[in-house]
Amino acid sequence: MVNPEGGAGPVGRTPGRSYRQAAERRAEILARAIELFAEHGTDTSLRAIGESIGVSHAALRYYFASRDELLIEVYRQHEQQEKEPSDPEDVPAVTLMERSAERNRSIPGIVGLYATLTTDALQADAHPQTREFVTERFRRVRADLVERIEAGQRAGTVAADVDPSDAAALVAAASDGLQLQWLLDPEAVDVRRSLELLERLLPGNGSRPEPRDSRPG
Amino acid sequence: MVNPEGGAGPVGRTPGRSYRQAAERRAEILARAIELFAEHGTDTSLRAIGESIGVSHAALRYYFASRDELLIEVYRQHEQQEKEPSDPEDVPAVTLMERSAERNRSIPGIVGLYATLTTDALQADAHPQTREFVTERFRRVRADLVERIEAGQRAGTVAADVDPSDAAALVAAASDGLQLQWLLDPEAVDVRRSLELLERLLPGNGSRPEPRDSRPG
Repeated sequence: MVNPEGGAGPVGRTPGRSYRQAAERRAEILARAIELFAEHGTDTSLRAIGESIGVSHAALRYYFASRDELLIEVYRQHEQQEKEPSDPEDVPAVTLMERSAERNRSIPGIVGLYATLTTDALQADAHPQTREFVTERFRRVRADLVERIEAGQRAGTVAADVDPSDAAALVAAASDGLQLQWLLDPEAVDVRRSLELLERLLPGNGSRPEPRDSRPG
Repeated sequence: MVNPEGGAGPVGRTPGRSYRQAAERRAEILARAIELFAEHGTDTSLRAIGESIGVSHAALRYYFASRDELLIEVYRQHEQQEKEPSDPEDVPAVTLMERSAERNRSIPGIVGLYATLTTDALQADAHPQTREFVTERFRRVRADLVERIEAGQRAGTVAADVDPSDAAALVAAASDGLQLQWLLDPEAVDVRRSLELLERLLPGNGSRPEPRDSRPG
């Protein structure tokens, strides 16, 4: 396919310059799509996305094979941008979700994009690529939470009889579901306060499960 | 609008018979749509829905003003059908969600419909009717859970210092999020086992929070 914006594309004849140009243009489209979704949500066709960010439908299709691929790439890019170096391995599972939810408060469009991806993922026949991406993402998130919960058990801050896999799925589910309820009804739902209840199960630093009278001193 | 299937419609001239006919036809379309969603999910246009259930697009538009209205009515109908007389007020909050999730295991299409409605609801401009329906439904679900949690606190089975509103949002969120993860990865996620962890916070019958040695006898 010929680059509709002129010049050779990724499969064109002058790879050196055009590869970089194509990569830059793709990154630019992604960055503008993130802004767009953050403002207006994802309930738009690929054509409408192109129009909103001033890229022809043909050009958009050159960089992204489908609406699904664009949505996935936008979300992936967002995840990389927001990856916090301040979330080291010793941050407890619930605290990690609280921090993530706190960051998401300012970008409801990205939470909407996430909801769109997970809903599309349920329709495996229509959205096989989204299904794979979302399923893998959930596995990655649960595996990360499992490690934090097991670390808590080794440190004695999480009860030893809690199954880490069951708890990881619960924490991820609670975080997702609470953010959705909060977006719909911000006066009625407080994500942080509800997640903090989970700390009774999986306490973080400063809320060890031992009863007060067993502490030294 | 003239009933495209012949005869006077809800606003026609022979209200007695035609009202009933229209109501019956509408109920029939809903019942078939529920079957269809249960099998194939909701990722379909109103036209495709009409074709799949053998109703012309024009006829479908006569009974349902929009795709959103049809999806809402299908979900509402499903909720009425599955309303269990066996869920009296003394069923604890977490048990209620466990029972609902258990029933939903056999109807993944309805869980997909629910996910579609909640995702659409985030796009208030494009789906105002869905936004109102889903927001009101969450309020109703949380209010029901709050009553059960408060009942548990009066009965001494739920810790007195748990905020009922925060806990209600948490339980509803966990249930929604876990069902979604389970649909995507049934081998990796066990909805019941993860929800049972919440019973440590909000115990049901048979798992009172008092330590063993304080029990009589």
